[in-house]
Amino acid sequence: MTISVPTYLLNESVVRANISRMAEKATASGVVFRPHFKTHQSPEIAGWFHEAGVACITVSSLKMADFFSHRGWRDILVAFPVNLLENELINSLANRIHLSLLVESEKVVNSLSNILSAPVDLYIKIDTGYHRTGMDPDDYSAVDHLVHQIAISRNLRLKGLLTHAGHTYHARSREEVIKIFYHTSKILTRLQKRLEPVSGLLVRSVGDTPSCSLVPEFSHVDEVRPGNFVFYDLMQLKLGTCNFSQIAGVVACPVVACHPKRNQAVIYGGAVHLSKEYLTENGRQVYGQMVRLTESGWSEPVPEAFVVSLAQEHGVIEAPGKVISSLQPGEIVGIVPVHSCLTANLLHGYKTLDGHNLTHLNES
Amino acid sequence: MTISVPTYLLNESVVRANISRMAEKATASGVVFRPHFKTHQSPEIAGWFHEAGVACITVSSLKMADFFSHRGWRDILVAFPVNLLENELINSLANRIHLSLLVESEKVVNSLSNILSAPVDLYIKIDTGYHRTGMDPDDYSAVDHLVHQIAISRNLRLKGLLTHAGHTYHARSREEVIKIFYHTSKILTRLQKRLEPVSGLLVRSVGDTPSCSLVPEFSHVDEVRPGNFVFYDLMQLKLGTCNFSQIAGVVACPVVACHPKRNQAVIYGGAVHLSKEYLTENGRQVYGQMVRLTESGWSEPVPEAFVVSLAQEHGVIEAPGKVISSLQPGEIVGIVPVHSCLTANLLHGYKTLDGHNLTHLNES
Repeated sequence: MTISVPTYLLNESVVRANISRMAEKATASGVVFRPHFKTHQSPEIAGWFHEAGVACITVSSLKMADFFSHRGWRDILVAFPVNLLENELINSLANRIHLSLLVESEKVVNSLSNILSAPVDLYIKIDTGYHRTGMDPDDYSAVDHLVHQIAISRNLRLKGLLTHAGHTYHARSREEVIKIFYHTSKILTRLQKRLEPVSGLLVRSVGDTPSCSLVPEFSHVDEVRPGNFVFYDLMQLKLGTCNFSQIAGVVACPVVACHPKRNQAVIYGGAVHLSKEYLTENGRQVYGQMVRLTESGWSEPVPEAFVVSLAQEHGVIEAPGKVISSLQPGEIVGIVPVHSCLTANLLHGYKTLDGHNLTHLNES
Repeated sequence: MTISVPTYLLNESVVRANISRMAEKATASGVVFRPHFKTHQSPEIAGWFHEAGVACITVSSLKMADFFSHRGWRDILVAFPVNLLENELINSLANRIHLSLLVESEKVVNSLSNILSAPVDLYIKIDTGYHRTGMDPDDYSAVDHLVHQIAISRNLRLKGLLTHAGHTYHARSREEVIKIFYHTSKILTRLQKRLEPVSGLLVRSVGDTPSCSLVPEFSHVDEVRPGNFVFYDLMQLKLGTCNFSQIAGVVACPVVACHPKRNQAVIYGGAVHLSKEYLTENGRQVYGQMVRLTESGWSEPVPEAFVVSLAQEHGVIEAPGKVISSLQPGEIVGIVPVHSCLTANLLHGYKTLDGHNLTHLNES
């Protein structure tokens, strides 16, 4: 396999195992598996989901919905507040596929209804504690009002209640992650029951990778939408939501300079490849951990070998002296990325360990 | 002008004024202006540099060199340590254009000489205090050894001494930035003089935007390579290296949700648009500052209106109540990006206030 520039290297077996594990848990729990494709954004990896029985998906932009709609996907939820300025694309999609959108305000519901020339399904976004978007589930009057507004609007069908419990990323233990899942599903269930007389039984849709990975089964919800689990990353490893063998990819980076005096080596692999997402490790910011590439893939993480700074194209690895002195310009090391979604978005494609190139929306 | 998704909006007059100002200072100082194109990566903006008399340029990857070599640029310095794994592209470029490369170790010099089928110019990278890459200027024996090695190697011609004083970004005042410039040029001059008997008069090349913006003239250097000054950004504004009217671009972002109760609004504009580069503002991380779009461009920064968190596609603006209550879904706000280079790399293109679309390497 020839690699000469920063490349997202994937172990296909690990990706497929991550997909199967989540798909099987969803099936065993009797819930709909609607994986989020924002992490991989790849038609080929989408194909692996299809082989695992997936028929409906989640994306984070209308552009992504459009991309996958042209590659055979007919049931797509855009899990992002409706962007009214993209009315043409919304209509194009609504006329071609089974489109679901996310709303949380009357203003958007009214404008959307005026725009639409074909029906769409709506989920109401509920804020279950992350406080990014969504309605307050305890603000009955606002929720009831929105439900009513949807009911009387043309081309809108209320389908579900959706939340993203992103606060699981700030949890300090696996137990806390699991607790958030059950707390979240309780909030959605309460609201679902309260609305049943007017709306019928709404779908309860949840989605973060930490809780979807850690709960033994998906009880008290109807649909799960995790995305990051397809690759996992250093952030998930640190959260305890995956183990190292479940991390499906590392970024292969050429070594370009070695500075043994300060225990550093410089790689071709910077902020435009890894992203500036960081973790705090012993009080300092790190942007990835080093692994060695091997015949069959990559090694366990090299202890205390972290990317400690990033320029546009440069990454600086700091590691124990014996690690740095074993490196030389012209060889390739692997970097476990902190946040696989952002790294994948920057690298515009993948290479599998078998040498196959996989495409990404940004490359197509 | 129709904008419906996050868009890097440029004021062409400001871009051209930034280019002229730096070009004129270089001319007045009698130094070569070799601007860094990694910030804009745009063939059209490259054309504006050409109109300002620029003939030789700097880039940060061989890919970028290749891109601009196919768009008429014949004198290109790749200001990044040589990546030996891209030997084919290095040779292709060396055979087509006047190519300059950066070295700092004997191993790379030897390998490079073995690879080359056409001559290239070399700059030795000198570490003047940033400690990312480069040789210690006081390690005479190592420098002399490398100079000798280059002299006896096939297809290599030693042209200059190059540094990137990136530590100006950590300076606490404009005076400190200027002091770093003079300290840096002093180090390069001392080395230049010491090597003159064996190497002839080497070119002293410097490049960071903060110092190139603040020094009144470029004394004691021969070449300047700033890049970011073409757009500037919030980071430069905070450093005091530009004023607000010199910031050439903002990211136009649709508002998608408003939460007056917590003084927040959500925009379509996330980590995949703005990048996760941040500044610290009153003890918290901010990823951009809000402006209002106007008939002729954009307003002054709205006080206390910052992007305080980023998800993949979401940005959360926190601002005083009266600012948030004036926003509604479907309108567009501007965000002054923290780091224009990374934002431009993510947005894959620009739109000028006159409605022209400009391309970017990542889009082509």
